Amino acid sequence: MVLLSKIQEFKFDKLELESGEVLSPITIAYETYGNLNSDKSNAVLICHALSGDSHVAGKYSKDDKKAGWWDNLVGSGKAIDTDRYFVICSNILGGCRGSTGPSSVNPKTKKPYALDFPLITVGDIVNAQKKLIDHFGIKKLLCVTGGSMGGMQALQWAVCYPDSVRSVIPIATTSRLSAQGIAFNEVGRRAIMADPNFNNGNYYDSNPPSDGLAIARMVGHITYLSDESMHKKFGRQTQGEDKFKSKFDINFQVESYLRHQGLSFTQRFDANSYLYIAKAGDYFDLAETFGSLMKAFAGSKGVKFLVISFTSDWLFPSYQSWEIVKALKANSIPVSYRNMESSAGHDAFLLDDPQFDNIIGGFLSHA
Amino acid sequence: MVLLSKIQEFKFDKLELESGEVLSPITIAYETYGNLNSDKSNAVLICHALSGDSHVAGKYSKDDKKAGWWDNLVGSGKAIDTDRYFVICSNILGGCRGSTGPSSVNPKTKKPYALDFPLITVGDIVNAQKKLIDHFGIKKLLCVTGGSMGGMQALQWAVCYPDSVRSVIPIATTSRLSAQGIAFNEVGRRAIMADPNFNNGNYYDSNPPSDGLAIARMVGHITYLSDESMHKKFGRQTQGEDKFKSKFDINFQVESYLRHQGLSFTQRFDANSYLYIAKAGDYFDLAETFGSLMKAFAGSKGVKFLVISFTSDWLFPSYQSWEIVKALKANSIPVSYRNMESSAGHDAFLLDDPQFDNIIGGFLSHA
Repeated sequence: MVLLSKIQEFKFDKLELESGEVLSPITIAYETYGNLNSDKSNAVLICHALSGDSHVAGKYSKDDKKAGWWDNLVGSGKAIDTDRYFVICSNILGGCRGSTGPSSVNPKTKKPYALDFPLITVGDIVNAQKKLIDHFGIKKLLCVTGGSMGGMQALQWAVCYPDSVRSVIPIATTSRLSAQGIAFNEVGRRAIMADPNFNNGNYYDSNPPSDGLAIARMVGHITYLSDESMHKKFGRQTQGEDKFKSKFDINFQVESYLRHQGLSFTQRFDANSYLYIAKAGDYFDLAETFGSLMKAFAGSKGVKFLVISFTSDWLFPSYQSWEIVKALKANSIPVSYRNMESSAGHDAFLLDDPQFDNIIGGFLSHA
Repeated sequence: MVLLSKIQEFKFDKLELESGEVLSPITIAYETYGNLNSDKSNAVLICHALSGDSHVAGKYSKDDKKAGWWDNLVGSGKAIDTDRYFVICSNILGGCRGSTGPSSVNPKTKKPYALDFPLITVGDIVNAQKKLIDHFGIKKLLCVTGGSMGGMQALQWAVCYPDSVRSVIPIATTSRLSAQGIAFNEVGRRAIMADPNFNNGNYYDSNPPSDGLAIARMVGHITYLSDESMHKKFGRQTQGEDKFKSKFDINFQVESYLRHQGLSFTQRFDANSYLYIAKAGDYFDLAETFGSLMKAFAGSKGVKFLVISFTSDWLFPSYQSWEIVKALKANSIPVSYRNMESSAGHDAFLLDDPQFDNIIGGFLSHA
């Protein structure tokens, strides 16, 4: 039976941001799956990554070709079992898939914010999620989980709202983005901002900076895969064009894949949102905020952790998860750590893997 | 004493390219260091990488701030000792530092070739170098060496002109570019070609596509460093700007570094050359050309090999050098292999390291 879902909206008056600015009003787009039990103790919050959205599982209608982005993990009888858990996934603040972001209308000007949108942080993103959880009357989430930037949000929940979470599962993530990660984000930003259509962010009445956004996405996709998975997927296979004739047209299959990923991304994503969200990722640094990573987790003693990394993930390498685990252990906080064997790179957290499902399902059952 | 050098030009009538096209006339810019001995047996050809040039060592005048790109390795009393060896380094065909390339004048139109320049291969680049070597009357080079794409050229010499080389030292290179390597090159090409100044390559009378070329170079620089070396060099250090005010301006030091590298590159390099040379790298595949890597080296039995890779090089990972070594061993060809411990990434081959110098110097003494 197809799990059906629909986007809902939660609106609230205002949010004071870490910058000190006040954003008002705010809409958070979200989807829920399953039923909240009577004592509101079975809620699982799933946080999406840079380019994700609230559509974590199921379909909007039976005829949809694609299901949500974590459909292999979330659903009836699956690891995050919607027969048992009440699953919530919201589009992050700053996003472009229903939640307030730079493409939203600025009430002061009646035009899209564009670059007048204030800089947001992972803390702000989580504070907006907290408002949504409060709206449901949920005092304590059973679990907060997510991969990549979703994992940053899970960590932020454990650090800032330890009394509101029983457990967190940060996956393929880090407590602070590496210089290399910042560098790749910066390339994406420069590509967007160098696009002549960018127009200092004011492109909502004209053509968006699609070339730049596509290039940013191409760079992203390289970092989501591993050398080995790219070799297995594409190797040096070409589309059979005569290389001397095709010159700088697409010929290698890996070029075709990247072109496709870049183009299709521009049809569903806003370039300004990309800038803001990537920047929030760059500035995420729990150690800096709290003095050290150990200090960051000092208040999280009541939270159970399952930390998962993947051996071939070079964007958020395993050693970065290990740093988190060490800081938790130093606080005597219960933590399970799994560095999963995979050749799929960073994207491994999105792929169907029974072992991965079992680890998450088992942890949740005892959370 | 400062080693002084100057660019010289070797001109010849024409070259038949692997594409079947004939390029005419051709200029190869080169520099030499030291003296060719009477039996012309002491010549070392150094091949540069994607963005290099003929200025491998020394200075053009005493007041130059910077010396050539491999000055730590090449010079009087150094590993590639210009008191003993006659060192030749030429700008590659397709380049923009004195040799014929897309920015050269097309005799048919009296305008720069731009994208009318024919696609070139590593084989073509080496065939043009062979003409230069013939011009010197050198029957057999003592050694051909280079890193990265320079290493591809060294391998090509061993395969196509085995009777003309006593030894080769391919460094931080591969017998065929990986899907990941092609992917990064493709991002650079798209960034250049999406720049509105690109104008299908016809920008020589106007502003060049500097934004696109800078982005291509930024991507390149990330791949030349390792996660660890970026962490050591920059970490998460900022320039102290208030993040909420600086927004998408440069703040992290790694951003500043990349911006500087990108901008300074546009002042010395031609975007069309970048397209052509990167494409030559993409299509380099000795196994494909000869049926297998073992077959490729079947004719190289008289050549001595020293293969060097670096442990933290993820653009041309050590396993790719090991594939070369295995194919040589399968042909019973003498080969020394050193996988050098380094945290510097691909760029390690350009850095001053006494151990690296000793290995190369020692090998050359017995070549």
